[in-house]
Amino acid sequence: MPHQTGAENVHAIQYHQHTLILLDQRKLPHEETYLHFKNASGIATAITDMVVRGAPAIGISAAFGIALEARLQINLPALNLRDAFTVLAASRPTAVNLFWALKKMKEAMNDCASLNMSEQVAFLEETAHTILNDDIKNNHIMGDLGASLIDSGSQVYTHCNAGALATGGYGTALGVIRSAHAQKKITHVYAGETRPWLQGARLTAWELMADNIPVTLSCEGAAGQLLRQGSVKWIIVGADRVSSNGDVANKIGTYNLAVLAKYHDVKVMVVAPSSTFDLSIESGDLIPIEARDEHEVTHIQGIQMAPKACPAINPSFDITPRELIAAIVCEQGIILEPNKEKIMAMLGNTEKESR
Amino acid sequence: MPHQTGAENVHAIQYHQHTLILLDQRKLPHEETYLHFKNASGIATAITDMVVRGAPAIGISAAFGIALEARLQINLPALNLRDAFTVLAASRPTAVNLFWALKKMKEAMNDCASLNMSEQVAFLEETAHTILNDDIKNNHIMGDLGASLIDSGSQVYTHCNAGALATGGYGTALGVIRSAHAQKKITHVYAGETRPWLQGARLTAWELMADNIPVTLSCEGAAGQLLRQGSVKWIIVGADRVSSNGDVANKIGTYNLAVLAKYHDVKVMVVAPSSTFDLSIESGDLIPIEARDEHEVTHIQGIQMAPKACPAINPSFDITPRELIAAIVCEQGIILEPNKEKIMAMLGNTEKESR
Repeated sequence: MPHQTGAENVHAIQYHQHTLILLDQRKLPHEETYLHFKNASGIATAITDMVVRGAPAIGISAAFGIALEARLQINLPALNLRDAFTVLAASRPTAVNLFWALKKMKEAMNDCASLNMSEQVAFLEETAHTILNDDIKNNHIMGDLGASLIDSGSQVYTHCNAGALATGGYGTALGVIRSAHAQKKITHVYAGETRPWLQGARLTAWELMADNIPVTLSCEGAAGQLLRQGSVKWIIVGADRVSSNGDVANKIGTYNLAVLAKYHDVKVMVVAPSSTFDLSIESGDLIPIEARDEHEVTHIQGIQMAPKACPAINPSFDITPRELIAAIVCEQGIILEPNKEKIMAMLGNTEKESR
Repeated sequence: MPHQTGAENVHAIQYHQHTLILLDQRKLPHEETYLHFKNASGIATAITDMVVRGAPAIGISAAFGIALEARLQINLPALNLRDAFTVLAASRPTAVNLFWALKKMKEAMNDCASLNMSEQVAFLEETAHTILNDDIKNNHIMGDLGASLIDSGSQVYTHCNAGALATGGYGTALGVIRSAHAQKKITHVYAGETRPWLQGARLTAWELMADNIPVTLSCEGAAGQLLRQGSVKWIIVGADRVSSNGDVANKIGTYNLAVLAKYHDVKVMVVAPSSTFDLSIESGDLIPIEARDEHEVTHIQGIQMAPKACPAINPSFDITPRELIAAIVCEQGIILEPNKEKIMAMLGNTEKESR
């Protein structure tokens, strides 16, 4: 489908007939396989195993996980979702959107506690749908905001996949790229392949090719030489968590790019909805960084590359300090040269409201 | 064998009974397959296809290619090696050791022109053996020189493979690491996996594990975060060509590391024998950079990773400007903060002598 209609509106997360349907992102770009989920623990495993990945997409999936678990209890006297919340919260540690979405679902649960069971379940399903739909809406808003920063005729570089596949649809970083390309501001996109999981090669290239946005793949090692050539004007990435001072946790390799960008006077744009901000954390160094299995580095598609028993580090994310970031684009506005004051001014009230 | 005796003395290039025997580096670390060559064009193809790789190893193999081609002509009235020189010179463009070795062989050819055919062939074989043996000897000298720069208890990071496999034996960058580890100066080595060809994962990890030198593999994208942690004191790499001002062409990704090193106050050491210096080239930007097939990026071990027809850049090398390099270690000495004056002072005469 995406290859006929474009990937802009690909829906990696669908909810039909009380079933969460996830596009299995481990099989892309060669196979479009959809997996069906009916309960929270199945969705938690899907998140851990990266059937679905990307900070907003993880949050949305977890929200539906709570709704599904509620539906399984529709004939019981009362909802007991404690285990569902626990298993989903333990699925991955870094992306705060997961915890944000679970908090939203808990609030919804409290809000509807006086309704009958059937109404409660319907309310939780509606809340999950709202999280999904708001995410898509916000991505379009951020797309336009981010595009407003980009000069005509620019080449840009993106890392990992912050696209339709990583969100409810349209994408964060790729949302900006889509909007700016539609406005003829972006002429070419370089996609870092993003070892070890190759999100760039497998997912971002797939999305951009399907949308006829010119894309060229690059190994991470070639980024410095590419930036040195001078055509790339922006590094555009998503985020998994933004601390209150503006430090950004994102896919491993983002920090490299930010340092390279600084050295070459290239600007870094982080595109992240307000659900990605964690105002309870003062700085990036306090964000928990997931260490994934060494086999993701030593093996590729099940084939062993490194010698047997070769140790490897596999941090899934790194921290880019705010000094290296030119702009954070959020659905509530653009934060240039982010710092705590600017972030609290824009998002401090939202946070309070939701508490 | 290497797993029993250590890889320190692994001989990826052997010459027995008028046959060049190359360890097929495409099959490592899982298979130790040796391929046999009897003529220049076979060796040229082996260099192009990366059966043998690494700047010094390419030069040594090419020298034996000339000797072998001469032996095939032993019953002719005179040597005609023009085609052999041409095909070998065209095998790969960036590593200057190839052209250096071919020049040595051409000089040898001229030197022995008055001898009979059998003596000429023997002289060329001897010359190739001398190139091989000098390379190993120089690597041990550089190993000690480089180790003298390293403080006790250091962790280091290396990129690609500049080891026994890339040279006649012992290695350039890995020679320094071997010497410094033997002197208990290096406690741990991080090996960058080195996409797309994975020399770090497949070759460097294999060499160091065989020698019981503690090694941990890292994706290129994780290097910045690793350096930020502060334990790594040196980036140690080889080189494919050094211009007269001290700029260094080396495996793609080296420039990234050098910029990251600068940002984190980590020092960069380039270990390269005098045969790697090209004093005819004023600066790195004039060094020809090989662009290899896009499939090396889009496919891994024959498996397609990126979408069909996805374009990719695949520059095999990049240029690290001299300002980012703390030391170039050559068998003739250490050049701290390299520049043209220092390089010409150390190597200018050698170059003149050999002309």
